[in-house]
Amino acid sequence: MAVMNYLTPCIFDFGAVAQLPKVLKTLNISRPFVVTDPGLKANGLLDKLIAALGEAPAGVFADTPANPTEAAARRAAVDYRAAKADGIVALGGGSSMDLAKALGLMVTHEGPFERLGGTVRGARFITKIPPLVAVPTTAGTGSEVSVGAVVILDNGRKETFVSPFLIPTQAICDPELTLGLPPMLTAATGMDAMTHCIEAVLSVVVHPPAEAIGLDGAERAWKWLPVAVADGSNRDARWHMMMASFQGALAFVKGLGVVHSLSHALGRVQELKLHHGTLNAVILPHSLAMIAGHAEEKFARIRRALDLASDADLAAAISDLNKRIGLPSSLSQMGVTEAHWPTAREYAISDIATAANAIPFDGEKFDELFKRAF
Amino acid sequence: MAVMNYLTPCIFDFGAVAQLPKVLKTLNISRPFVVTDPGLKANGLLDKLIAALGEAPAGVFADTPANPTEAAARRAAVDYRAAKADGIVALGGGSSMDLAKALGLMVTHEGPFERLGGTVRGARFITKIPPLVAVPTTAGTGSEVSVGAVVILDNGRKETFVSPFLIPTQAICDPELTLGLPPMLTAATGMDAMTHCIEAVLSVVVHPPAEAIGLDGAERAWKWLPVAVADGSNRDARWHMMMASFQGALAFVKGLGVVHSLSHALGRVQELKLHHGTLNAVILPHSLAMIAGHAEEKFARIRRALDLASDADLAAAISDLNKRIGLPSSLSQMGVTEAHWPTAREYAISDIATAANAIPFDGEKFDELFKRAF
Repeated sequence: MAVMNYLTPCIFDFGAVAQLPKVLKTLNISRPFVVTDPGLKANGLLDKLIAALGEAPAGVFADTPANPTEAAARRAAVDYRAAKADGIVALGGGSSMDLAKALGLMVTHEGPFERLGGTVRGARFITKIPPLVAVPTTAGTGSEVSVGAVVILDNGRKETFVSPFLIPTQAICDPELTLGLPPMLTAATGMDAMTHCIEAVLSVVVHPPAEAIGLDGAERAWKWLPVAVADGSNRDARWHMMMASFQGALAFVKGLGVVHSLSHALGRVQELKLHHGTLNAVILPHSLAMIAGHAEEKFARIRRALDLASDADLAAAISDLNKRIGLPSSLSQMGVTEAHWPTAREYAISDIATAANAIPFDGEKFDELFKRAF
Repeated sequence: MAVMNYLTPCIFDFGAVAQLPKVLKTLNISRPFVVTDPGLKANGLLDKLIAALGEAPAGVFADTPANPTEAAARRAAVDYRAAKADGIVALGGGSSMDLAKALGLMVTHEGPFERLGGTVRGARFITKIPPLVAVPTTAGTGSEVSVGAVVILDNGRKETFVSPFLIPTQAICDPELTLGLPPMLTAATGMDAMTHCIEAVLSVVVHPPAEAIGLDGAERAWKWLPVAVADGSNRDARWHMMMASFQGALAFVKGLGVVHSLSHALGRVQELKLHHGTLNAVILPHSLAMIAGHAEEKFARIRRALDLASDADLAAAISDLNKRIGLPSSLSQMGVTEAHWPTAREYAISDIATAANAIPFDGEKFDELFKRAF
């Protein structure tokens, strides 16, 4: 059992979810409130969690939407208060974990929810939320260790909430919970982890420990993601992909880059409902092609980590990986049209991830990236 | 400026010490008490720190011995209380930082000091100490981020104190402060960092993020330590060695190995007063020679990090590094005799680092290690 303690304490191994009662006791949570989604209620993972708890939780909110909304968090907050809960257990992918963070904010912070958002520098108003135990069931977002939560506001805007207070109090990473993840979701979430690792390594922020973790995570995902997609029951592959996801989020404390800026921008197009990991996967090779030649040393280190030839084309290698694991190769294949671009363009330019990108990116550069990925 | 936040928040760069007033304000320290040693008082670094403070600290204890003692910590605690101080600034190498931790324990914990020691499982009695800002002036121990402190008790025993509460509240790593470190001390402390990185990677504990950081730190020390020793004024080399030291301590959350066990054991021989880093440097190649063949995958990763041939003899490479940076090649050269062995042997076997070693080590194995290193 790996016990890791950078940013958030994490218990990591097959069967780790059995440690939940002990963890709750340590955190003085006697009335846990579980946040999850309908899929995990249907496929038995919620039952598995409740069995691990040993007794019924104080309450359960199993209606997390695919993209968490302010409205859903508000309903969960009503239930949380009614249950007289004293802590949160988030079971799921990034959506459940982000909804749990939003719920945590709502039950501890007065005033309009949106004033806490990143675009209005709301971090300065964010203080302690109830103790939050994150139990991821996908391997990609790394939300179990990250400072962020993405929520669609009542006004339709997708807002990012960022604060050290949003880092879960404890993470329980049990790869067993990912064994049933279908190949497409394994591939898409896995490429989210890969993108976190690679963009974090390339970001201009200086943070050698995070960079080392990112390189290791990229090496791990490169080796094990095709295995996990080809054979979801491969326990080694599931272990390593959950680790790569965890490492990706540890790495991105040093920032991300324009893949995420563009991915966030297109992810806001409500009628398309695009998967964040798939977007990252499709855009990543094109960002790499544009950065190539401007970050030689880091490209060399990434090539070495991926065991590629010293003159290998990194962008082509990632494109090839996408193909091998069955992901689309263009935004147009995903339903994006040129009509979506003007709005997304403005958002991408102002996205927080743009500032940390390996090379400066303005509107024209984003035009080129969009065109390449289109 | 790198701002890193695994285990302890760290501000890292040339000139970082100028951030001290801001850091103290954030930590609500209005009456800082400075712990340092006579060398740093003599060479002007204490003056530099006080200049950065902008005003006189509430008190200064500049009598830290080369190996911190319970008696010295007690005297510092008296001064701390008399100064009505509300926080500690440790300026120095491992000794000043460890003494500061001991002082912190003394002013907050009742009863005999030794009951808090690791050998009597004292960690369970250790709670919060005053806020502690660590400002390292050597690059090796990594005590600015570590959970431990080593103190010679009144009864003559060398005791290790370990608790998450002993991790400094904040680290300020300013490579500028190491520019004047003489070549021998640069070499010896640098090999302490190198040993932390390599033993942490090889330890049996599973912690991939720490392992990745250890590999990166080893790569960094391998490249930059000879440069720092040859030219102490090389700022890049000083930056990277301070980073390797920081990374070594982040890495050894996953444990160390028998190099440290033997080094601790021989470091307790009072009449020899051996330098911990030099001991590590001398012993490391011999531990590697004994582990070789039993940890192939990790050896391969270390070779790759050090840019060695895939069939290179890692032990010989480290021996050669020691030679290049002017360190001794045997314990006997350092004054150790066979008469020192029986007592040291018992200590080494029971040292906490032994349990995490890459391969199990009993008395006979330690006999062999001692003989090889002798």
